[in-house]
Amino acid sequence: MKKIVTIGGGTGSYTLLRGLKHFDDIEISAIVSMADDGGSTGMLRDELGVLPPGDVRQCLVALSLHDEVVRKLMKYRFEEGSLKGHNFGNILLAGLEKTAGSFVKGVEIASDILKIRGKVIPVTEDVANLLVVLKDGTELLGQNNINHSDIQSVGVKEVLFQGAVEINELAKKAIIEADLIVLGPGNFYCSLMPNFIVDGFKEAINESKAKIVLPVNLTNKKGHTLFFNVSDYVREIESMLDKKIDYIICNNETPSDEQIEMYKVEEGDGVMVLNDMKEDKRIISTPVLSHEIIVKSEHDNVASTRSFIRHDSKKIAEAVHNLL
Amino acid sequence: MKKIVTIGGGTGSYTLLRGLKHFDDIEISAIVSMADDGGSTGMLRDELGVLPPGDVRQCLVALSLHDEVVRKLMKYRFEEGSLKGHNFGNILLAGLEKTAGSFVKGVEIASDILKIRGKVIPVTEDVANLLVVLKDGTELLGQNNINHSDIQSVGVKEVLFQGAVEINELAKKAIIEADLIVLGPGNFYCSLMPNFIVDGFKEAINESKAKIVLPVNLTNKKGHTLFFNVSDYVREIESMLDKKIDYIICNNETPSDEQIEMYKVEEGDGVMVLNDMKEDKRIISTPVLSHEIIVKSEHDNVASTRSFIRHDSKKIAEAVHNLL
Repeated sequence: MKKIVTIGGGTGSYTLLRGLKHFDDIEISAIVSMADDGGSTGMLRDELGVLPPGDVRQCLVALSLHDEVVRKLMKYRFEEGSLKGHNFGNILLAGLEKTAGSFVKGVEIASDILKIRGKVIPVTEDVANLLVVLKDGTELLGQNNINHSDIQSVGVKEVLFQGAVEINELAKKAIIEADLIVLGPGNFYCSLMPNFIVDGFKEAINESKAKIVLPVNLTNKKGHTLFFNVSDYVREIESMLDKKIDYIICNNETPSDEQIEMYKVEEGDGVMVLNDMKEDKRIISTPVLSHEIIVKSEHDNVASTRSFIRHDSKKIAEAVHNLL
Repeated sequence: MKKIVTIGGGTGSYTLLRGLKHFDDIEISAIVSMADDGGSTGMLRDELGVLPPGDVRQCLVALSLHDEVVRKLMKYRFEEGSLKGHNFGNILLAGLEKTAGSFVKGVEIASDILKIRGKVIPVTEDVANLLVVLKDGTELLGQNNINHSDIQSVGVKEVLFQGAVEINELAKKAIIEADLIVLGPGNFYCSLMPNFIVDGFKEAINESKAKIVLPVNLTNKKGHTLFFNVSDYVREIESMLDKKIDYIICNNETPSDEQIEMYKVEEGDGVMVLNDMKEDKRIISTPVLSHEIIVKSEHDNVASTRSFIRHDSKKIAEAVHNLL
């Protein structure tokens, strides 16, 4: 059994893992960033002092082999009363952290309840408050805050955590023992970086003999990475990790007119990530785009807040699996 | 496989079921009253319009073969923030009702998640608001209200539901097909009656060829059944159901001094249920008392609110099982 480790947290990981779980010949470890502090997750962090459940929950759902209704339950958001705004899966993880004594132990139990294929591993057990320092000295604290701020106009000087945040031993072990490590796809500053900057993460990546694959994001985030091309992601990530990426998966399909219309993508607006490394031997140029039109759903907060141009679970998982 | 049906809802059912689940030669169906409207259950009923989860949750936990930590989670009560006062198991059942589309379907899924032995069956799927009419015409609405009121001084004229409350077909089927039906133990007006008065319940009991067993309560509830002896329970229940009880299990152990002290039981105060039917051939006089001293626990709301004199799970389950 080949060992695949995915690194991420948000919708990108959800999409990839949902596809990967159908391959029986791999062992999956999903390493998840722990800096989320928005929405229901933020409320639970603040009110109960638990670790952020949101991203872990999404990965659990992605890997769950349980019935549709249980996966639907995990994504269900209460709409009335004192539970209003809370997501059931987040409440489950918060309750498990309280009763099992640790978040990691709670995730293990949730994994059993949800019959997941593989493992979901929080990158750290420490409280991880993301801090971005801009080039003019401005400090932006908190992932949700950073996510909704323009950090690109002034420029990012440094991304770090407030206080020491060390790698979870289980995450370290998974990285070191992996055959293939998949970086993303995911929001650069809010899903990837909060993994990369954890103490011991880079060292684990460097100790590992795994091949490193980067499924490049399809779109850039306004205020964060607008006008980034493939080479920008590659350069930024390689400099963060002090390691060369082995494979770069780039989409070569064009979004439909409808997708372009819904996402308001215009030529030259810097939202679409362009492949400016076509001659590089590490590039795998392949169709990985989803043609599904996402309709905002009442119960699926993943679909409701994300882009209309995204990876196809099956295609991106196959592209990754082909590298083994 | 002999089929046992238990009727009840509160701690009595919890205690009995916890013992019964260890017998491999029986099929257990726990029929649960649906009139609870207090605490976390009441909040969820009011705020989300769901059916009352509390009693069903307790029975699920009692029959769960899952790890200790999962059973602990089901009983866990959040202590801070917007979730304060809510019990996790109740939130689970409320979320499942919303996502599965019905409470009964939700209970089925929870049963699977919790790996329960047997079935937990809500006695009805209708909204069941308990109403007690006193002899002076006073009406008391709501189980929680009734539970905390003195209804005995004036005397109870009638116990009914506000509106039509019909038996759940699954409950009817279980009763008709049973070999043994266990009435209680449980609070007379708040756990037993809310089953007995459901439309179709009495008819199902009468159609069934099952033997009927009454494990008589150990103590009387102040303001409800003070000074009730065994014959009072038997008479009241037989008149409600138009059917003779076949076996009456009476405890013949004396509580310890410590238990008496903690429960402030004094001779002649009417709290202990006395066996005034010793000559009756249906009486099974046997030691079924728990000698455990219950310490109020932070996470176990069952223990925190119940009597110090209660049935021993193992002993009461054995006494019932012996009747097969």
